[in-house]
Amino acid sequence: MEKRVYNFSPGPAMLPLPVLEEAQRDLLALPGVGMSILEISHRSKEFTQIIEQAEANLRRLLAIPDNYRVLFLQGGAQMQFAMVPMNFLRGSDKAADYILTGTWGKKASGEAKTQGKVRVAWDGQETNYDRVPEQAQLDLDPKAAYVHFTSNETIQGVQFPTEPDTGNVPLVCDASSDFLCRPVPIERYGILYACAQKNAGPAGVTVVIIRDDLLAKTPHDLPSMLNYKLLAEAKSLFNTPPVFAIYMVKLVTDWLLAEIGGLAKMLELNQQKVQLLYDAIDRCEGFYDIHAAPDSRSLMNVAFRLANADLDAPFLEQAAQRGLANLKGHRSVGGCRASIYNAMPIEGVQTLADFMLEFCDQRK
Amino acid sequence: MEKRVYNFSPGPAMLPLPVLEEAQRDLLALPGVGMSILEISHRSKEFTQIIEQAEANLRRLLAIPDNYRVLFLQGGAQMQFAMVPMNFLRGSDKAADYILTGTWGKKASGEAKTQGKVRVAWDGQETNYDRVPEQAQLDLDPKAAYVHFTSNETIQGVQFPTEPDTGNVPLVCDASSDFLCRPVPIERYGILYACAQKNAGPAGVTVVIIRDDLLAKTPHDLPSMLNYKLLAEAKSLFNTPPVFAIYMVKLVTDWLLAEIGGLAKMLELNQQKVQLLYDAIDRCEGFYDIHAAPDSRSLMNVAFRLANADLDAPFLEQAAQRGLANLKGHRSVGGCRASIYNAMPIEGVQTLADFMLEFCDQRK
Repeated sequence: MEKRVYNFSPGPAMLPLPVLEEAQRDLLALPGVGMSILEISHRSKEFTQIIEQAEANLRRLLAIPDNYRVLFLQGGAQMQFAMVPMNFLRGSDKAADYILTGTWGKKASGEAKTQGKVRVAWDGQETNYDRVPEQAQLDLDPKAAYVHFTSNETIQGVQFPTEPDTGNVPLVCDASSDFLCRPVPIERYGILYACAQKNAGPAGVTVVIIRDDLLAKTPHDLPSMLNYKLLAEAKSLFNTPPVFAIYMVKLVTDWLLAEIGGLAKMLELNQQKVQLLYDAIDRCEGFYDIHAAPDSRSLMNVAFRLANADLDAPFLEQAAQRGLANLKGHRSVGGCRASIYNAMPIEGVQTLADFMLEFCDQRK
Repeated sequence: MEKRVYNFSPGPAMLPLPVLEEAQRDLLALPGVGMSILEISHRSKEFTQIIEQAEANLRRLLAIPDNYRVLFLQGGAQMQFAMVPMNFLRGSDKAADYILTGTWGKKASGEAKTQGKVRVAWDGQETNYDRVPEQAQLDLDPKAAYVHFTSNETIQGVQFPTEPDTGNVPLVCDASSDFLCRPVPIERYGILYACAQKNAGPAGVTVVIIRDDLLAKTPHDLPSMLNYKLLAEAKSLFNTPPVFAIYMVKLVTDWLLAEIGGLAKMLELNQQKVQLLYDAIDRCEGFYDIHAAPDSRSLMNVAFRLANADLDAPFLEQAAQRGLANLKGHRSVGGCRASIYNAMPIEGVQTLADFMLEFCDQRK
């Protein structure tokens, strides 16, 4: 077998090795079916079991209440940036509140503006999106159609420690890059959506968890594929869904339940992993600098700079030589970024932490 | 290895075995990359090569002229049912002409009605969608925004032998179920789109071939993910595309070029395959009845009935026992249907033809 590297990419990202091994083993023919998962009908009893199990796993992991639907859609989070306001803002005579904590929140609000009035409830631009707001800082419209926030900003590496309180206004969350990294009180959300390619599976499927009462508000004049109500009534089978990607979500959530032991345990592991990096950075006393303010640090994406930016290139090169891949930061923040999603093993983070200490000793 | 069956499903459908074997071999790590195709970044040089090769393969197979873009999108053909009128009908003060030859054409026209005025240029309902129109039968509006047709109706098994002539009005084609089954003069089309899960790959990606000049007509107030111009400018990487499904399209088109030898050769093979079934049906002298009128018969989907409908159940049961799977027809047409896409080997069709003759001898 090809040697595998530790992949710190912000997404698509690492998948658990046992999941890849199972997918590989059965790729020519699912046991007892005689066809590949890539060939079976989305109406077959085999796929029905797979999609139902994927949903059941998510319901168990997140304790999703019965009055929420779980959808498996296409188009990534960016299609949700459009569908949320197409369904709940356009024609509503209300505005929607957007909390802007980084690149993705800003993009979401930009798409919403094509459909109606957008208010900015908070904007972290002044400090270059290095933190999330406190509740008291939010300028919320009690009559808003909904409040949208980004639970974890992948590029800036800032994460809400807990969701904002929006009273009776539906809370809509783009959880793409921290979905399934910890328990979440779904009952506080109207909609929580996440593309799969960070913590839940490969690129090509997006999970949308939506409260029943919102489905009644979708407009009648939307194309079917953009209407949450029709998609929910069809149980994500309005047309052919991304069968393989949903199968992978089933395998990843099987792994979270059986191998990890659920999201409380996953959170513990994620906290241990991220702490390894923070400790290494602390010990280097200013050689590395974390972008996020301490209270807003992400469990998933650690965006950091080398104080001496000339060392970025050798740092990345030497890291790559050790099988530590994709550590370059996004150009809007600069420096480096270690994305350490659920599937990144603690050994990978330890190897990175050790390398960071060594590199600091070498070059300080 | 699990024994594989002959899968006559209308889609998702069989994939070429060498394609599945290559995907399986490299599933844990692409050669020299150290990461799975399910884990690599869509911005990596490895994926750039894959998506560029998939496009180059399609350009070579279909002789796509330089003034056409090739897009890899999500949402299936049904998302195209919406995107075509959102981009080219809404706000145009024109109507769009729809040619209705079966279930999918009707669905496409229904979605278009959410965006603007739809004219029916021909409707095959009177004869239960058993044929395609002749050119002279079309009632075309010379000022139409576009003319939409379905080159092959999967459920009814009727296929246009050649595309309609629409003069200067852009021709838009849903080619989902006959894409890559034969050469097509792309220069006669404004847009040709096809979901992958029949002839081009697994479910989860949709190929859209669109003429440059149409991109200039897209409205400015559409969400980005629904705007062809933005998607084309980003070369299908406006956001994370369905990486694995695009990789599979590359492998399938590699196979079409290297193993089959191109679409003229594929057409020959498809004609041989379908003829095996027609010959068997002819020899049974009325025991089986083909839904499609002779001039409109599809190369891909053979919808047929047993004259004695009581025999449907034993026919399907005995077929399944021989590893001939998914032959049940769609409820709107009834009876049986053999979908024999590119990847169905001639041995599979021969086995089915032999079984049909045997079953007829047994029960006639």
